[in-house]
Amino acid sequence: MENPGYSSGFDGLHHPSDDDDDEMVDIAGATLDFSTTDDVPPLSSGGYDEYSAGSSSSRAAGMNGSGPTKLVDPLEDPLPGVGTYEDFNTIDWVREKSKDRDRHREITNKSRESTVALLHSVSDAFSGWLLMLLVGLMAGSLAGGIDIAAHWMTDLKEGVCLIGFWFNHEHCCWTSNETTFQERDRCPQWKSWAELIAGTAQGPFAYIVNYLMYIFWALLFSFLAVTLVRAFAPYACGSGIPEIKTILSGFIIRGYLGKWTLIIKTITLVLAVSSGLSLGKEGPLVHVACCCANILCHLFTKYRKNEAKRREVLSAAAAVGVSVAFGAPIGGVLFSLEEVSYYFPLKTLWRSFFAALVAAFTLRSINPFGNSRLVLFYVEFHAPWHLLELAPFILLGIFGGLWGALFIKANIAWCRMRKTTRLGHYPVIEVLLVTAVTALIAFPNSYTRMSGAELISELFNDCSLLDSSQLCGYKQPVNTSETGVDNSLADRPAGAGLYTALWQLALALIFKMLITVITFGMKVPSGLFIPSMAVGAIAGRLLGVGMEQLAYYNHDWLIFRGWCSPGADCITPGLYAMVGAAACLGGVTRMTVSLVVIMFELTGGLEYIVPLMAATMTSKWVADAFGREGIYEAHIRLNGYPFLEPKEEFEHSSLAVDVMRPRRGDPALAVLTQDSMTIGEVETLVESTHYSGFPVVVSQESQRLVGFVLRRDLLISIDNARKRQDGIVSASLVVFTEHCPAQPPEAPPPLRLRGIVDLSPFTVTDHTPMDITVDIFRKLGLRQCLVTHNGRLLGIITKKDILKHMAQIANRDPDSILFN
Amino acid sequence: MENPGYSSGFDGLHHPSDDDDDEMVDIAGATLDFSTTDDVPPLSSGGYDEYSAGSSSSRAAGMNGSGPTKLVDPLEDPLPGVGTYEDFNTIDWVREKSKDRDRHREITNKSRESTVALLHSVSDAFSGWLLMLLVGLMAGSLAGGIDIAAHWMTDLKEGVCLIGFWFNHEHCCWTSNETTFQERDRCPQWKSWAELIAGTAQGPFAYIVNYLMYIFWALLFSFLAVTLVRAFAPYACGSGIPEIKTILSGFIIRGYLGKWTLIIKTITLVLAVSSGLSLGKEGPLVHVACCCANILCHLFTKYRKNEAKRREVLSAAAAVGVSVAFGAPIGGVLFSLEEVSYYFPLKTLWRSFFAALVAAFTLRSINPFGNSRLVLFYVEFHAPWHLLELAPFILLGIFGGLWGALFIKANIAWCRMRKTTRLGHYPVIEVLLVTAVTALIAFPNSYTRMSGAELISELFNDCSLLDSSQLCGYKQPVNTSETGVDNSLADRPAGAGLYTALWQLALALIFKMLITVITFGMKVPSGLFIPSMAVGAIAGRLLGVGMEQLAYYNHDWLIFRGWCSPGADCITPGLYAMVGAAACLGGVTRMTVSLVVIMFELTGGLEYIVPLMAATMTSKWVADAFGREGIYEAHIRLNGYPFLEPKEEFEHSSLAVDVMRPRRGDPALAVLTQDSMTIGEVETLVESTHYSGFPVVVSQESQRLVGFVLRRDLLISIDNARKRQDGIVSASLVVFTEHCPAQPPEAPPPLRLRGIVDLSPFTVTDHTPMDITVDIFRKLGLRQCLVTHNGRLLGIITKKDILKHMAQIANRDPDSILFN
Repeated sequence: MENPGYSSGFDGLHHPSDDDDDEMVDIAGATLDFSTTDDVPPLSSGGYDEYSAGSSSSRAAGMNGSGPTKLVDPLEDPLPGVGTYEDFNTIDWVREKSKDRDRHREITNKSRESTVALLHSVSDAFSGWLLMLLVGLMAGSLAGGIDIAAHWMTDLKEGVCLIGFWFNHEHCCWTSNETTFQERDRCPQWKSWAELIAGTAQGPFAYIVNYLMYIFWALLFSFLAVTLVRAFAPYACGSGIPEIKTILSGFIIRGYLGKWTLIIKTITLVLAVSSGLSLGKEGPLVHVACCCANILCHLFTKYRKNEAKRREVLSAAAAVGVSVAFGAPIGGVLFSLEEVSYYFPLKTLWRSFFAALVAAFTLRSINPFGNSRLVLFYVEFHAPWHLLELAPFILLGIFGGLWGALFIKANIAWCRMRKTTRLGHYPVIEVLLVTAVTALIAFPNSYTRMSGAELISELFNDCSLLDSSQLCGYKQPVNTSETGVDNSLADRPAGAGLYTALWQLALALIFKMLITVITFGMKVPSGLFIPSMAVGAIAGRLLGVGMEQLAYYNHDWLIFRGWCSPGADCITPGLYAMVGAAACLGGVTRMTVSLVVIMFELTGGLEYIVPLMAATMTSKWVADAFGREGIYEAHIRLNGYPFLEPKEEFEHSSLAVDVMRPRRGDPALAVLTQDSMTIGEVETLVESTHYSGFPVVVSQESQRLVGFVLRRDLLISIDNARKRQDGIVSASLVVFTEHCPAQPPEAPPPLRLRGIVDLSPFTVTDHTPMDITVDIFRKLGLRQCLVTHNGRLLGIITKKDILKHMAQIANRDPDSILFN
Repeated sequence: MENPGYSSGFDGLHHPSDDDDDEMVDIAGATLDFSTTDDVPPLSSGGYDEYSAGSSSSRAAGMNGSGPTKLVDPLEDPLPGVGTYEDFNTIDWVREKSKDRDRHREITNKSRESTVALLHSVSDAFSGWLLMLLVGLMAGSLAGGIDIAAHWMTDLKEGVCLIGFWFNHEHCCWTSNETTFQERDRCPQWKSWAELIAGTAQGPFAYIVNYLMYIFWALLFSFLAVTLVRAFAPYACGSGIPEIKTILSGFIIRGYLGKWTLIIKTITLVLAVSSGLSLGKEGPLVHVACCCANILCHLFTKYRKNEAKRREVLSAAAAVGVSVAFGAPIGGVLFSLEEVSYYFPLKTLWRSFFAALVAAFTLRSINPFGNSRLVLFYVEFHAPWHLLELAPFILLGIFGGLWGALFIKANIAWCRMRKTTRLGHYPVIEVLLVTAVTALIAFPNSYTRMSGAELISELFNDCSLLDSSQLCGYKQPVNTSETGVDNSLADRPAGAGLYTALWQLALALIFKMLITVITFGMKVPSGLFIPSMAVGAIAGRLLGVGMEQLAYYNHDWLIFRGWCSPGADCITPGLYAMVGAAACLGGVTRMTVSLVVIMFELTGGLEYIVPLMAATMTSKWVADAFGREGIYEAHIRLNGYPFLEPKEEFEHSSLAVDVMRPRRGDPALAVLTQDSMTIGEVETLVESTHYSGFPVVVSQESQRLVGFVLRRDLLISIDNARKRQDGIVSASLVVFTEHCPAQPPEAPPPLRLRGIVDLSPFTVTDHTPMDITVDIFRKLGLRQCLVTHNGRLLGIITKKDILKHMAQIANRDPDSILFN
């Protein structure tokens, strides 16, 4: 497997400057595939010396490239590197948070001394809000730009504006005087490709020219997208939400949120959306927002230097992403809370909301849709819904759940195939093939030719008499005066136009269901929200029209009698589409509350919470019956990220002693003693093992725990002492205690390393049930935990041990968890 | 101080049946005042024997009353009482959650064996949702009943309906044919008291009769309310939110959510609201919903027996309370999340949302407001807001913040005076006096005479031409045809009617601001939402009208020029009222996101999130500058509840060793050894101390920790063994190990108590910074934590030690924290 960007080891002598997470892009041409089929889990891949030699290309690039040019403040970090993390490692939330509190305390204490320090303290307090403001502004502007560009390029597939190629179809015709309200999208300034090339807009030849041009542009856009992704930012592909979930849970993937990823993702997102592939821009917008946040974090020391604080900002950025994707600030905050975030304190809630509002407001000011509404798919239904309609809504929920479960299974199977077979070696060809198929099939059917957002908008819409769309092709009543003025809203029989539309919709449904499975996961930015909603909206609209006709022809049935008076509207197919969209999206992502809130912010329909909720809850229950994981969790597991799912309870009855290392029969735990080991012994121990940290005990005999020291810190300190401190040789004693033990006079001076010992390591007893241990890991965000018995150190449990144990219980391959 | 219901001790021999939390009501006549001025903190109030003798009346009542009549399942609880909690104690979240997981595991394992067990497992899984459904239905119905009753009784103060005294004013006139749309609240069937008694509706005599009748009814209602509260359910007074916050954080106050509290709170809430006091029903509705949930929990073993699971239900119930109070399900969930709850997993989020929806739906079906809207104060503003208007909105935020901070200080000072002076001894007289003053002042001013909700509704409203209210007393333009049809929305100069209204509003503002301070905290159910919102709405409307007139007379000013074209509406005073209401409520409660969501659910104004957010954030910042605590936290501290605030960071740099007991110089920690103490020795140790638990160590010399045993469990077990087990005498060895040590043959059989030892007690090292320790306590919901040094047991930290330490740091009296 090609995987140059990933190295499982722990390189203690690499001192990254604290903002080197943009360097990933130097691994040009590398596809970022986290799976490694060679079965070498990090913990067993050899000794320390191997790591320094086998430093990965990405890391080497990071060091030789821009790394050394950046300055590290010598005052704040006396030993650069101590307290930072390697790439693909898990952060220690407790330590990070404690560091931030120390910093805050220092600033607060100083603020009493001078006015400058006071100002510093105030600016520090408000820097979080300022950062949020900047994130909101930047993400909102970017989203506006993406919307405008995607709109223009989507229209470019069909034609071009003569008065200025940079106008999209709608814009082009706005400026025209010859446009009537009825046909506002036809104007002489806008020329289809057939008109330009063949000189005619009608006839089979024109159709074929348009068809070919459509395919040409689609292929061009998707080729550009996949090439850019491969060449400059392999991290820019996919939706990004699984990785962001993992990062927020405390994992480090350098470069995933860097500036190159941002630039490339923004450009390729526009290209991918414009190419007409069955994908949405919502998930990638979350990634884009998180990139913005991560980059802006570099402006503030508080966030640049603290991984935990930075993750708070990223949580807020996820809310911003959804906020700009749907114009749904509250839904965005709830999405971040329910779906993405790991640690979401109240402070983050407030800030997320603020940032989401700023972003939505910025987007509205840019006004990419030209309707100055915050609401993307504004709907206004005239008839209230009836309690009995809950039955079809629940039916839609069942459909959504089934589809969600099926989609996840099919998509994961397809992605696994891509990983394990030769298919994965030709991402460009794959993308081009899928684009060609999509364009070929999509063009003839008007419902697949239009973009996903347009389709959803049309399906959500209620029909009025003036509506000229096919979906509203009802038979006109013969005598309008008889039934009165309100007739436009009354039930009507379906006409030929509607029947055609239904056929086309049914075909579009099947096509979308199939193509989305193979589209999601390709090496282009791809979101899942819009395709899922489109599937649900089509199914919902079909059911809605069916119900409507059923009610029209059977007004005398008992169930319809009290509810549908003749001549009045009683069933709104648009509402069914809305409920169906929510159900399908719920089935795929397993969101509930945030989904309902997004849906009603999207449509402005506060009165339809109950139908939406009924459908999403049903959908979740049904889908959960087939598998507990949503699409994002499934992709996390597929990629083997070390993610400790906060939603699922640990149900097994094992104890800490069953999970800890060393296992029965393994060699004893590698420990350091507090005042009886020499530098040479320590180095031998460290080099002969691969652990990322070592417990410090009073003595080998007593095994009484003193603290925990990280391999990285230890190596950096010893290395530093050997270079700078006089008299430090291999025979020097390493002392972790406060007072040095008495030594013979001829002995070399001891090396005192109490400063790097964590004197408050977390411990559990060997009898602690694993469910409690898992709870502690989740809630406190631990990296590792020591296991004691009657006060003696027994072993250690890391996050990875837990994940392996859980995989074992679930009969999965425990070595599929790759990183720690 | 009279305080019979509170005993600080730990009575190990009292075995409560697991649903005895309704028995509080037996302490008839006791006022429940949690403060004790006698300075005896629980930990230092003497030995064990004192507790059995001095058992409090409430507990005695609990035992002798209904306690013994209830059956305890002997199979599920071999030793009744082990694993339960005393009143006024803190629960151990970890233990409770672990217990629930064990139960769940057992059911899941059994479910594979038989169909019955499978059904049991399924019903167990769905019991949570069923419970939520029931809570929603019950709370929704109760809220509907309260609304209807309060509406009727409020109108009763002014008159009565002749065709049926049970009709309220609006209802009475609905049935009348003589009502026109213009004067729909005047009809011959509705008679004011003056018409009935004096025979005339006009003139000073009629006014005086109406005045006196108004005062009479107000006094009657409030007298009934305070008497009922004092006689039957002292816990029913106040808003209940501080106590619910404390309970949700893991404290036990038996009876606080019992059936008597529910019944009395429901009745007295109607009375208190109807009496015209400056209070709202929103906070108490949260209490009512929590009572419903707690009572319904008894139907399900899963929730009855587990304090942690029950608290999840209560969190959801808090959401239900707000949902029915404002018709705001999403706001309710966020309120519970942001303001009330302590532990809010995602599962609870979903369930809360479901319950809140059911409740809102139930309420809408009951339709107490007769407009079949979920939205309480529906507003529709015609003009969009301008970016420059953010300045006055932020001004309103500053006002709200100032008022909030001032209100909290004043109210707390008043409540403290009530506690410490003789004022607190005459709650009935206090209530009657305040009612009399309120009624006397409120009647002449129409804005204070109407109920708070009506006032807010009127202030939020936008004026149309047809509007006959005083607030819309603008001068009519002379020539309507000149300015066009849209004139009704155009700016107009204020007329005499509006000036009168402004004066009255200004007086009402001052009155409301003063009276609310002394009303909140009286011994009647009283909420704070509506009065706070009313204050803000008045201030906002005043500012709004001011701005409107400023803009009208100065259209040529630079700032107004681009924004207000003459003849068009440019400022909406109703929007200012809305923003002001949010700002004041935000200042008092320090809510932000949930408040904004509640406001927009309340008014349906999705477009006004930005103004609302600007005002609430400003308000929070301004108020926080004067004191970090919201009104609920302030009341929690006033009452000395053991509540560990999750919002505030612990900023001090102390270590665990500084906080733990025993302090330097104190006698050593009382510990049990695992296999070398006799029953007599254990009993002596337990009786000579007052701790609620004891660490078990390997031996006194090594101090190596084995586990932790609770006093209550220990005493119950020894007591039980002495009664039932042969050969157990004082000289018997108590053995906590798995294997008994070798004993001389003549020794009595040992008592094996490994089963009651918690073998996984939480430990931190002495060097652990307190900020981390506090974090652990908060996140895991601990009761106590043991402190070790190099594997040796050093001391113990309880939640109360932390609270005392925090009080000490903040220069408050550490003994003000009363319970643990």
